[in-house]
Amino acid sequence: MFESAELGHRTDKETYDEAVPALRAALLDAQFELLDSKQFAVVVLINGIDGAGKGETVNLLNEWMDPRHIEAWAFDTPTDEASVRPFMWPFWRALPPKGKIGVLFNNWYTEPIRERVERSSKKADFDQQMDEIRRFEEMLAHEGVLLIKLWFHLSKDGQKKRLKELEKDPKTRWRVTDRDWHYFERYERYRDVAGRALRLTSTGDCPWTIVDGSDARFRALFVGRVLLDGLRKRLDTAQRHWMPRKTAAPLPPAIDSLNLLNSLQLKQDMSKKEYEDLLERYQGRLALLTRDPAFREHGVVLVFEGGDAAGKGGAIRRITAALDVRQYRIIPIAAPSEEELAQPYLWRFWRHLPGRGKVVIFDRSWYGRVLVERVEGFCSEADWMRAYGEINDFEDQLVQAGTVVVKFWLAISKDEQLARFKAREAEPHKRFKITEEDWRNRERWDDYARAVCDMADRTSTENAPWTLVEADNKLFARIKILRTVCEALEAAMAK
Amino acid sequence: MFESAELGHRTDKETYDEAVPALRAALLDAQFELLDSKQFAVVVLINGIDGAGKGETVNLLNEWMDPRHIEAWAFDTPTDEASVRPFMWPFWRALPPKGKIGVLFNNWYTEPIRERVERSSKKADFDQQMDEIRRFEEMLAHEGVLLIKLWFHLSKDGQKKRLKELEKDPKTRWRVTDRDWHYFERYERYRDVAGRALRLTSTGDCPWTIVDGSDARFRALFVGRVLLDGLRKRLDTAQRHWMPRKTAAPLPPAIDSLNLLNSLQLKQDMSKKEYEDLLERYQGRLALLTRDPAFREHGVVLVFEGGDAAGKGGAIRRITAALDVRQYRIIPIAAPSEEELAQPYLWRFWRHLPGRGKVVIFDRSWYGRVLVERVEGFCSEADWMRAYGEINDFEDQLVQAGTVVVKFWLAISKDEQLARFKAREAEPHKRFKITEEDWRNRERWDDYARAVCDMADRTSTENAPWTLVEADNKLFARIKILRTVCEALEAAMAK
Repeated sequence: MFESAELGHRTDKETYDEAVPALRAALLDAQFELLDSKQFAVVVLINGIDGAGKGETVNLLNEWMDPRHIEAWAFDTPTDEASVRPFMWPFWRALPPKGKIGVLFNNWYTEPIRERVERSSKKADFDQQMDEIRRFEEMLAHEGVLLIKLWFHLSKDGQKKRLKELEKDPKTRWRVTDRDWHYFERYERYRDVAGRALRLTSTGDCPWTIVDGSDARFRALFVGRVLLDGLRKRLDTAQRHWMPRKTAAPLPPAIDSLNLLNSLQLKQDMSKKEYEDLLERYQGRLALLTRDPAFREHGVVLVFEGGDAAGKGGAIRRITAALDVRQYRIIPIAAPSEEELAQPYLWRFWRHLPGRGKVVIFDRSWYGRVLVERVEGFCSEADWMRAYGEINDFEDQLVQAGTVVVKFWLAISKDEQLARFKAREAEPHKRFKITEEDWRNRERWDDYARAVCDMADRTSTENAPWTLVEADNKLFARIKILRTVCEALEAAMAK
Repeated sequence: MFESAELGHRTDKETYDEAVPALRAALLDAQFELLDSKQFAVVVLINGIDGAGKGETVNLLNEWMDPRHIEAWAFDTPTDEASVRPFMWPFWRALPPKGKIGVLFNNWYTEPIRERVERSSKKADFDQQMDEIRRFEEMLAHEGVLLIKLWFHLSKDGQKKRLKELEKDPKTRWRVTDRDWHYFERYERYRDVAGRALRLTSTGDCPWTIVDGSDARFRALFVGRVLLDGLRKRLDTAQRHWMPRKTAAPLPPAIDSLNLLNSLQLKQDMSKKEYEDLLERYQGRLALLTRDPAFREHGVVLVFEGGDAAGKGGAIRRITAALDVRQYRIIPIAAPSEEELAQPYLWRFWRHLPGRGKVVIFDRSWYGRVLVERVEGFCSEADWMRAYGEINDFEDQLVQAGTVVVKFWLAISKDEQLARFKAREAEPHKRFKITEEDWRNRERWDDYARAVCDMADRTSTENAPWTLVEADNKLFARIKILRTVCEALEAAMAK
């Protein structure tokens, strides 16, 4: 893995001084072409052996290019806002928008490698972490992010020599820490673990590039070229596979008429009296659960999806009525803002994830990708097909972080919807709730039904199962939802 | 202050049940009118005596209105991201965008009042804090935020009765904490401190409303009405004084031709050789300063303003060359994003403030308000006139939080600018740097000069003075800037 990086590449001053001006101009051009076109974001990962010139090289690139459009991030100890959220949360926060270049030090590789070197994680865990990272990076690539992964390498002698040099010079002494020597003593193990990480995460879309760090001029030219080539290749390429095709994806045929939705018994009986008793019981139960000290160990994510007028809002209000307003936040998902459009699809949901002891309720959610976006053709078939897996990974990370994820699909019959539309148009202070679009969506009823069934089949996981709610009777639906939330919380808090 | 709130207002069930439906419909209408028009943001402050029904009332309002467009925030212990930033930072983060309602518990009044009750702050400090808050709220009001300040009150007996009731009921026992009783024992002092706070911060734009918390039905109706009246008044009012008039502000005449800028000796001598020696010296000094352990106690904000082609970018690069890329971020200020436009003017700058040990470099800044926006008439005279004071307050809060603020105006002569424009147009990889707009701005040269002089006069404070940089000679300018930064850091770190 590191063979050619130990050959001791060198660049003499003359060659260097001759090459830099052209390289610099080309990098600057590419950077501004990127900035103007806003076609994609660039993420540069800086990893490798201490003393191999990671910092110097990036500082130099910042001199060569326009530093105003390069964002560098170093993740040392996680902030307490990060420590109560999934492992990937701080990195999502640091993703650059389209048109910009983000440079990430101590990124998602740092902790897993460190833990494995210190033997505080098992090989199986490590491999699993690498697999998660691989899928995460694949998602970034599919979302159009240009990922440049640089591993700065030194031979053992090379590292020793380098650390000693740095320690000698008062200008650089501050940079050599005990941690550096600690790792040096574990050089072989560190190299082996790193080698495995690189092998497991080098893919066609997101390959690693190993940088021989022994010579400052060589590594500067080398990294500059790698970055330039990456930028040019993407800027010049004609077909932009990551731009969603705006044509509707062909929906595969259904062989028979039986599906998850029409096999539900949508009309359920519940008397007003029965409803009020159960409502009080479950709201009381939920109120006590969310005030239980054990609750502070968990965040809660509730996802509400359903056809128009299925009763999402009403069900949500019955839940929030049992919560303290300081505990929860409702995120209504509408059209993304321009800042959100400049980021990978899931970014706009990550930014709202709850800390421990908090509840975030998504009124519509990331499932828009495989529902409205699929049916209306706002994204390509490739995009919504991969979304199932990406969503499963996302929710899996939530659950791993101790977050309780409960997902509801509120199902109503076509007749019930019609009745509710008409009722809403009649009621003055509900008129705002019914729009042209609702009528249009109604015409795509069968397409949506099919999309919902595929969604339930592909994203109902052991960690985050879907609850299909028979919602023609609002009362029944609200009680089923409240009960499901209570049981999910009790199960999580019992662990 | 609290007299009428101790009269023991009561509302019987019948009156209540009769009033609620209409109130609720009206609130809902107002909320959606607000949401559609996106005319302004609403901030509701919830303060007052424990047990006076703060939480219940807001929970109820959330039931009455559409909770999806109400964001409630509770600020308990500051996160470590907040603790390294100015006192107001978490509250800026929580401000709702135009069209939404934000409910803030434990807001900017909580800590100052608590500290004063506990006698951990002096009366003078407290009065100063209240004064800062008053100016902050005035700014919000000018920015179009509708501020509704609710103080929930109970008589001493009333509070005791209430806390005991809550403790009796297992459903509500969790809500009474030792803290509540701790405050109860200090009831008189708490009431006096609160009374003073209310008096000092009740202004025409941002008055306090005292809520008699003793009866649940009364306080619910009362708060609902207060909120409704506030919303309606603003929604219905014709003249929207907070909308910037798009006409250019008349620039007051200059009596003579002497001003800060033309009294500068713009042409300064510095040989290439001298420059290189000094550059190395000051960059070395800055490198050591920013690696000094004492530096981790300070954040640094560098502000670069100056005419087009004045050399901001070049000067910034000479500074960043001495820094570690992990320490700094450059924020180029261009047109605001849509999320930023939905917030008060200074919000987009607050979001980028550095933590300790970090440097944020603003390439153009909040001074755009009193420069380009003033000259081009993008905001009203009233807006840029008040901006001077708001900016001074903002920078004062930064300095109070241990942030070093250094502001540079790079001044070049009209001839020098022309020469640089031409040079840029000639150079291939600098062409992107010169636009139509640059030529247009040049025609307003004298107007800009006048705006710069006013800016320097009104915002050069002892905490955050302006450094006017003679920049016809780039080399001289860069050295002066580097030296100024070094000296500012040394002064701050010596304290």
